[in-house]
Amino acid sequence: MSILVPPEKPRGFIDRTGAQADAERRIVEAVGAVYEQWGFERLETPATEYTEALGKFLPDLDRPNEGVFSFQDDERWLSLRYDLTAPLARYVAENFDALPKPYRRWAAGPVWRNEKPGPGRYREFWQCDADTVGSASPAADAEMIAMACAALEAAGVQRGGYQLKFSTRKLLDAVLEKIGIAADAYSTRLVVLRAIDKFDRLGRAGVEALLGAGRKDGSGDFTKGAGLDAGQRTAILDLVSVGAGARAEVLARLAGLVAGPALEELRAIEAALSALGIADAQAALDPNIVRGLEYYTGAVFEAQLIGGDGVNFGSVGGGGRYDGLVSRFRAEPVPATGFSIGVSRLAAALQAQQAAQTRGPVVVLVMDQARVGDSLAMAAELRAAGVRAEAYLGGGGMKAQLRYADKRNAPIAVIQGGDELARGTVTLKDLARGAEIAKLAGEDREAYAKLREQVQKEIPRGELIVAVRAMLQGRNA
Amino acid sequence: MSILVPPEKPRGFIDRTGAQADAERRIVEAVGAVYEQWGFERLETPATEYTEALGKFLPDLDRPNEGVFSFQDDERWLSLRYDLTAPLARYVAENFDALPKPYRRWAAGPVWRNEKPGPGRYREFWQCDADTVGSASPAADAEMIAMACAALEAAGVQRGGYQLKFSTRKLLDAVLEKIGIAADAYSTRLVVLRAIDKFDRLGRAGVEALLGAGRKDGSGDFTKGAGLDAGQRTAILDLVSVGAGARAEVLARLAGLVAGPALEELRAIEAALSALGIADAQAALDPNIVRGLEYYTGAVFEAQLIGGDGVNFGSVGGGGRYDGLVSRFRAEPVPATGFSIGVSRLAAALQAQQAAQTRGPVVVLVMDQARVGDSLAMAAELRAAGVRAEAYLGGGGMKAQLRYADKRNAPIAVIQGGDELARGTVTLKDLARGAEIAKLAGEDREAYAKLREQVQKEIPRGELIVAVRAMLQGRNA
Repeated sequence: MSILVPPEKPRGFIDRTGAQADAERRIVEAVGAVYEQWGFERLETPATEYTEALGKFLPDLDRPNEGVFSFQDDERWLSLRYDLTAPLARYVAENFDALPKPYRRWAAGPVWRNEKPGPGRYREFWQCDADTVGSASPAADAEMIAMACAALEAAGVQRGGYQLKFSTRKLLDAVLEKIGIAADAYSTRLVVLRAIDKFDRLGRAGVEALLGAGRKDGSGDFTKGAGLDAGQRTAILDLVSVGAGARAEVLARLAGLVAGPALEELRAIEAALSALGIADAQAALDPNIVRGLEYYTGAVFEAQLIGGDGVNFGSVGGGGRYDGLVSRFRAEPVPATGFSIGVSRLAAALQAQQAAQTRGPVVVLVMDQARVGDSLAMAAELRAAGVRAEAYLGGGGMKAQLRYADKRNAPIAVIQGGDELARGTVTLKDLARGAEIAKLAGEDREAYAKLREQVQKEIPRGELIVAVRAMLQGRNA
Repeated sequence: MSILVPPEKPRGFIDRTGAQADAERRIVEAVGAVYEQWGFERLETPATEYTEALGKFLPDLDRPNEGVFSFQDDERWLSLRYDLTAPLARYVAENFDALPKPYRRWAAGPVWRNEKPGPGRYREFWQCDADTVGSASPAADAEMIAMACAALEAAGVQRGGYQLKFSTRKLLDAVLEKIGIAADAYSTRLVVLRAIDKFDRLGRAGVEALLGAGRKDGSGDFTKGAGLDAGQRTAILDLVSVGAGARAEVLARLAGLVAGPALEELRAIEAALSALGIADAQAALDPNIVRGLEYYTGAVFEAQLIGGDGVNFGSVGGGGRYDGLVSRFRAEPVPATGFSIGVSRLAAALQAQQAAQTRGPVVVLVMDQARVGDSLAMAAELRAAGVRAEAYLGGGGMKAQLRYADKRNAPIAVIQGGDELARGTVTLKDLARGAEIAKLAGEDREAYAKLREQVQKEIPRGELIVAVRAMLQGRNA
């Protein structure tokens, strides 16, 4: 062995060590104990399945058999599982007659995605799922939501630090039927689903463009729209504009728009959640929750971690009803509902949430003592939006002010010098990120220079709140 | 989706559910807690590595890059890990300067073997390893042995229900040097290692054949031998015949055969084990423990589960010193020693051990009241060998006697009718196995008929003890 091999791990994969690995394992143990407590039985299926058994359960319509790592064995194709639901479908179909119905199983393990890796986006991560197979009752959906609350609390998320949001796909079905879009117009329905999914990010105008001809984004890329006419768009936008909130209130607002199975289902879920003692603060009804995946057929839910600054740390889990679970293997429909916690994501979000609890205020610098009022106004504006903030009230120059912000453990410094004032902008400096990448300065100059650009961002003055929130969430995009 | 896919899992893979899955997870938790207690830090590496990083760390010389599941990604080959040691080597080399030395890590997870599946032989199973990297001290080896004892006890094996056996490769090195076989005569050394590894099964004569010209087994297959001359063979057989036992006694016997580093190392391990309070019953010195793998360079150890009937449930873990750990990646030698518990195997062995504790005696039937003395003698012979046994003392016929044996939860019935007497044989009936396969009778006639043959076995009268033990261990081969 005279030629040495460079020691490197495959692209998009990471090693987890010590506290980080322990944190993920602790989550699995705590969540698994809750699932057991609720009567779910552990199932461990292999890491690989026959590729045909995994089928097209993939998030993207246009890549049926991509997205998975595949290899051949005895002339048959095997793939690493990309989630824990597809193996469950195979297991249920294989053992159908022997299983109690409803069959309640939980599972935890790594899944693999053959996707382009990116920052914080790995090709291997853990999920921890629970599914009830063989029950069509909305109570089974409600139970998933309530159990997800218990699981998150067991994993160390305090009450108030998370919120489940739920809805049902049937809401949209009802509206689509009303506006004359056929139930089998799959691609139109998928484009509509994806448009609604982007409401948080694009707002009403962006969604309307995607429902119509299409939309050009900031980079100039054009996304083709669903091609709906004005009346059709309005009907969908009316649904999208109902907004999230306390379950009874949202139900009342929805009652003016739709009727039939969708509303009945949501009422039944609400009744079961109340029976289970789940407050609106724990689980809210939000008609804009659609979950981008194509296979859900009814209820959909998503768990979000939230911080004290009104900051949303993003989705740490989700699920829903998918009555076509075993349809690849068996002719009859088998109703099923399930919830999946993204273990790696939850661990990272928990860490960010805990870091957020101990971090200092956003500090608005004062570049010109004559304009101290502008800084005070910006700080007030941030506080009104729920973000802890203060203006710098000492007498130092820019360097001293940044040192002060560092000492206060401030996540962000807001800067408006003369140039920015003239352009109607402000500059945000991501101090937490800056400290991280400063370690790179000595090691990798090129990467350092590149990352430095991301640390500082000039934005229109009117977008202060939105941009500060995005930066607090660690998402500059 | 009108064409249904047959629901089946890949060949050689299994689903684990409920109690079985829980048992394996409990073992990992209990063993991991012991490793943590002893100062080892958890490490989770990816399921895949670049194939070149896994290199030739395979058990078999003749299949360097086979035995693993491999697939291509961006024109580079990735393989699923086949153990937890090769990824550790990559991790250590990749983070060499940043790691504390010695570096103590533990890891648990599934590994994958692209091998022909067989009964009880799966292509995916869990291991739970601890390794100390960067210590050449025999105390580090002794610590592995002592920690393995603690880990097995934490996993639920009672003291007396397991035994660690250890030796060092240097013993054989010393003998081979004495008889003039060069240190770089790898293939000869490997054939010798494998011959010694089979001492338990083949006895002295079988091993001598493998050291010489070769050996024809029961099925007529010929295994080529190491081609050693009579004097060379004797030197090795002298070592092999030292036997296992209390550490001080075996050391005394070895002192007459070898000297130098091998003996010094074993004495140091013994001293450290005594300092750690490990009794001979927990960890014995056995010069015939070689571990078939090629990469060990010094101490080797193996953990065996034992039953009340003197039955060995086989190896549930093992390890040793491999000072070439990172040699694929770095030029300098890095001393390392480690221990791996086969989680799935330990779970199965524990279950068999617990079943053995509640099972009834071997029942020797009486086919002819005039020959009751023969049956009493066989039962006495079995008891003398440590096997719980009795002769049937009622007045029933064969059917009634078998019913009696079943009611007693007897694992085996021993039968010697007139035909067997004439042939000098006895028939063993595996009652535990028979009950299992009886379930098949209604389902799969062909499989049932085939398995029935395995349940009943006619053996020479002189092999009674050996055959009963093999059947108690569930190995009819």
